[in-house]
Amino acid sequence: MKIRVYYEDTDLGGIVYHSNYIKYCERARSEHFFAHGVMPREGDSSGFVVRTLKADYLATATLGDMLQVTTEILSTKNSSITLLQKIFKEKKLIFGMEIVLVYIEDGKPSRIPEKFKEIFALI
Amino acid sequence: MKIRVYYEDTDLGGIVYHSNYIKYCERARSEHFFAHGVMPREGDSSGFVVRTLKADYLATATLGDMLQVTTEILSTKNSSITLLQKIFKEKKLIFGMEIVLVYIEDGKPSRIPEKFKEIFALI
Amino acid sequence: MKIRVYYEDTDLGGIVYHSNYIKYCERARSEHFFAHGVMPREGDSSGFVVRTLKADYLATATLGDMLQVTTEILSTKNSSITLLQKIFKEKKLIFGMEIVLVYIEDGKPSRIPEKFKEIFALI
Amino acid sequence: MKIRVYYEDTDLGGIVYHSNYIKYCERARSEHFFAHGVMPREGDSSGFVVRTLKADYLATATLGDMLQVTTEILSTKNSSITLLQKIFKEKKLIFGMEIVLVYIEDGKPSRIPEKFKEIFALI
Repeated sequence: MKIRVYYEDTDLGGIVYHSNYIKYCERARSEHFFAHGVMPREGDSSGFVVRTLKADYLATATLGDMLQVTTEILSTKNSSITLLQKIFKEKKLIFGMEIVLVYIEDGKPSRIPEKFKEIFALI
Repeated sequence: MKIRVYYEDTDLGGIVYHSNYIKYCERARSEHFFAHGVMPREGDSSGFVVRTLKADYLATATLGDMLQVTTEILSTKNSSITLLQKIFKEKKLIFGMEIVLVYIEDGKPSRIPEKFKEIFALI
Repeated sequence: MKIRVYYEDTDLGGIVYHSNYIKYCERARSEHFFAHGVMPREGDSSGFVVRTLKADYLATATLGDMLQVTTEILSTKNSSITLLQKIFKEKKLIFGMEIVLVYIEDGKPSRIPEKFKEIFALI
Repeated sequence: MKIRVYYEDTDLGGIVYHSNYIKYCERARSEHFFAHGVMPREGDSSGFVVRTLKADYLATATLGDMLQVTTEILSTKNSSITLLQKIFKEKKLIFGMEIVLVYIEDGKPSRIPEKFKEIFALI
């Protein structure tokens, strides 16, 4: 998954605004679903939500940079999944994030549907 | 309606990214509704959408600036409303926008509900 | 220039938030520069700023949609350029925008540098 | 520090997009500086950058909610500071984040200027 840095992503410090790396990681997660023709949610009352995230900022990116996002599964449970996502600029690691996603149905953690598990298994 | 400019609003040019002024105007429109304890939408299938907008960028704003947004009604029709919104930095006009909003129900332009008309009448 | 719609682009109305189409158009403009290995700005005190824009919202887009942005030059002057940008969803036109950009140096409109004119000529 | 949730902050899941809570916390940090008439950065080559953050998402917020952000200092070092920031919806804690900021000058971690330390001491 390649992501270009645009003006909107930078701030007056001249570099990518810190919360945007977290958006890039979400794009990569969604793209895994889209690549299999599946929406990352079903109906209005279910879907994945973020429970926790831990992020390390190792280097910066700026306008015009082409970044690459990788995603690995660290563990899966009935209703949650833990991912490790990394962002590289050329070959250099600039950002790493461990994120726990919980599947919610009608406001409550619920078993992740099989079709979503299958998509994660293909990451 | 006062709006502070934060890091997230600026880009590496050192000033507010152009589409953010349009977001500030939307905040001001929503705030008129919130001020009367009313959500600017009803249910999942109805609400106002933007049909057209014309914007003039007259001067810039940057980190820490406190901006003021004003809203005037230019005209109202059954299913649409035309507003003039201005953004000031101190007393100086820095941005102006004329925007046409259409009320949509189940995907089609529909009569604006009375309670919404009343809110606009109070602007 | 193809742009995927992600969660971050949508709002609780279920569709792309209106100011994001304007960001998509800016991405397309920047991409024309990046494609030729040129940054759309020089140093800290010069670059293009938006003077006016007129936008028409014709249809909506939502999560997972793949959009296409096109850019045409309507006219060029010494220090400004007028573009017509369109966004398509499959073959359907969903958004159109006429935008006037002014080249600024040290806060004043200035002659657009030749290397930037050449890039625009290749659009 | 009070923050209203607007359309732009929500996604089609109907709630605030996850990375926006992190933006809210940054607004609160900047506001501490603005409140003392100080910009959170000096010149173009220095300022605070995020080194790490750990965030817990405990409950959701949606359009029109009025949130409150609190900031506490956990520890300070020569060139870095660790903060605990919390977001409340009415009295309910919905988000917590521990964040380490490093002061950078010309690309390298440097001693935090006294005037910035004084601002933090007043939090």
